[in-house]
Amino acid sequence: MEQLKIIKIGGNIIDDENALESFLNDFSKIHGKKILIHGGGKIATKVSQALGIQTQMHEGRRITCKDTIDVVTMTYAGLINKKIVAELQKYDCNAIGLTGADGNLIPSIKRPVKDIDYGFVGDVKEDKINTSLLQLFISKEICPVFCAITHDENGQLLNTNADTIAATIAKSLSKVYNVDLIYCFEKNGVLADINDNNSVIKNITPENFDKLKSEGIIANGMIPKLSNAFDALDYGVNRVIIKNAQYISDDSGTFITQN
Amino acid sequence: MEQLKIIKIGGNIIDDENALESFLNDFSKIHGKKILIHGGGKIATKVSQALGIQTQMHEGRRITCKDTIDVVTMTYAGLINKKIVAELQKYDCNAIGLTGADGNLIPSIKRPVKDIDYGFVGDVKEDKINTSLLQLFISKEICPVFCAITHDENGQLLNTNADTIAATIAKSLSKVYNVDLIYCFEKNGVLADINDNNSVIKNITPENFDKLKSEGIIANGMIPKLSNAFDALDYGVNRVIIKNAQYISDDSGTFITQN
Repeated sequence: MEQLKIIKIGGNIIDDENALESFLNDFSKIHGKKILIHGGGKIATKVSQALGIQTQMHEGRRITCKDTIDVVTMTYAGLINKKIVAELQKYDCNAIGLTGADGNLIPSIKRPVKDIDYGFVGDVKEDKINTSLLQLFISKEICPVFCAITHDENGQLLNTNADTIAATIAKSLSKVYNVDLIYCFEKNGVLADINDNNSVIKNITPENFDKLKSEGIIANGMIPKLSNAFDALDYGVNRVIIKNAQYISDDSGTFITQN
Repeated sequence: MEQLKIIKIGGNIIDDENALESFLNDFSKIHGKKILIHGGGKIATKVSQALGIQTQMHEGRRITCKDTIDVVTMTYAGLINKKIVAELQKYDCNAIGLTGADGNLIPSIKRPVKDIDYGFVGDVKEDKINTSLLQLFISKEICPVFCAITHDENGQLLNTNADTIAATIAKSLSKVYNVDLIYCFEKNGVLADINDNNSVIKNITPENFDKLKSEGIIANGMIPKLSNAFDALDYGVNRVIIKNAQYISDDSGTFITQN
């Protein structure tokens, strides 16, 4: 099978104009088939404040009210996504900016209300990803660039976690490509010592994961991230790589593999 | 050649939620190949005001400063475009929302400064439209939905007249399709009596255009619109139709043809 790199960048890069431009230049130079997924950034909060919309959070997660879904649609699908696309075009990478509504690429379901009503938040329908359209883009050397907006197939746009979108697309396309799922952030990888950016754990497998957990080296927020990574591997993703966005082109970072 | 309908809607429909939903329902039911181009609307001005950005106009045209191109990108390419796409998906029309930057579909050039600096406004490079990608979408029964944003191929998004985008796409695709270019607005067509919505001039040809002008029946803003329509016909567009968005499915309106 052909190689496909699925790369996710987060708000830290989006908010730093120079870092973003540098990343996009590097990204454009990556050979072969690739997809970019980007998160949000502070601009949504800034626009919300200007429009007098209260940003409600619950345990670090944004509650997406009717006004907020409009603001994230504006900022993620409009401003950020199209700026990224235009920048990639400058570097001769033929990008196309997408939400999950476009081409019905990512149908999702509004999260059911249990204890908390997260509002217009979508959970992806994993088995309904429009992989054939993604394959068509890729075969024509068009690079899909996704923001983290999906839809419910009934006219409603939904705010969706960008990490989840990346993982879901990676799993779906693993049937037809040899997929590397790459999460970029501001650190050099999964660190053995959180204060030492040079302490990157080079490889994590199911075998050493339990050991790293029991020793307390991997803890807190990193545990669900790694559990999701192993889930992606179970669904056929070749490798999950967690690395620094600054070094997208080299072989640095933490490689999460089956063995 | 196969039929293709290229339909442009303006700000009046965009600003009226019920009218827009009704139009999109009708649009989704149009058989055959189709492309939608939409204008802006008042939301850009509202967001600009909230963000404290002065809206500068010159002879009814918006001057697009650096902050303003961000706002129109947010509102046109983000909010309006994606709401339209999600709504069309609801009606089983497989829409894809696009700017001219996506897939490098519409390269343009920043308007040179003469007496007035219009700022980040783009004039379309007519011979560089990516018709092969549009044909690909159409062949796959995907309906392109364009907002009026293009790019300069050097990383800069540009604000572009939606009527011009519609006409340029229509001319380019006339080489491969039998194109009807349809401008929707709030009146029933080109009116012989501006105060009588039932006084639609059914057909305008180069032959009766001069007569209608000399009699003062067609005047002011309608003259350049009709000149552009004849230009489109010269480039191979089959018919230009000016009609009421409410009646998109019937054969009402003014038909502008070569003879």
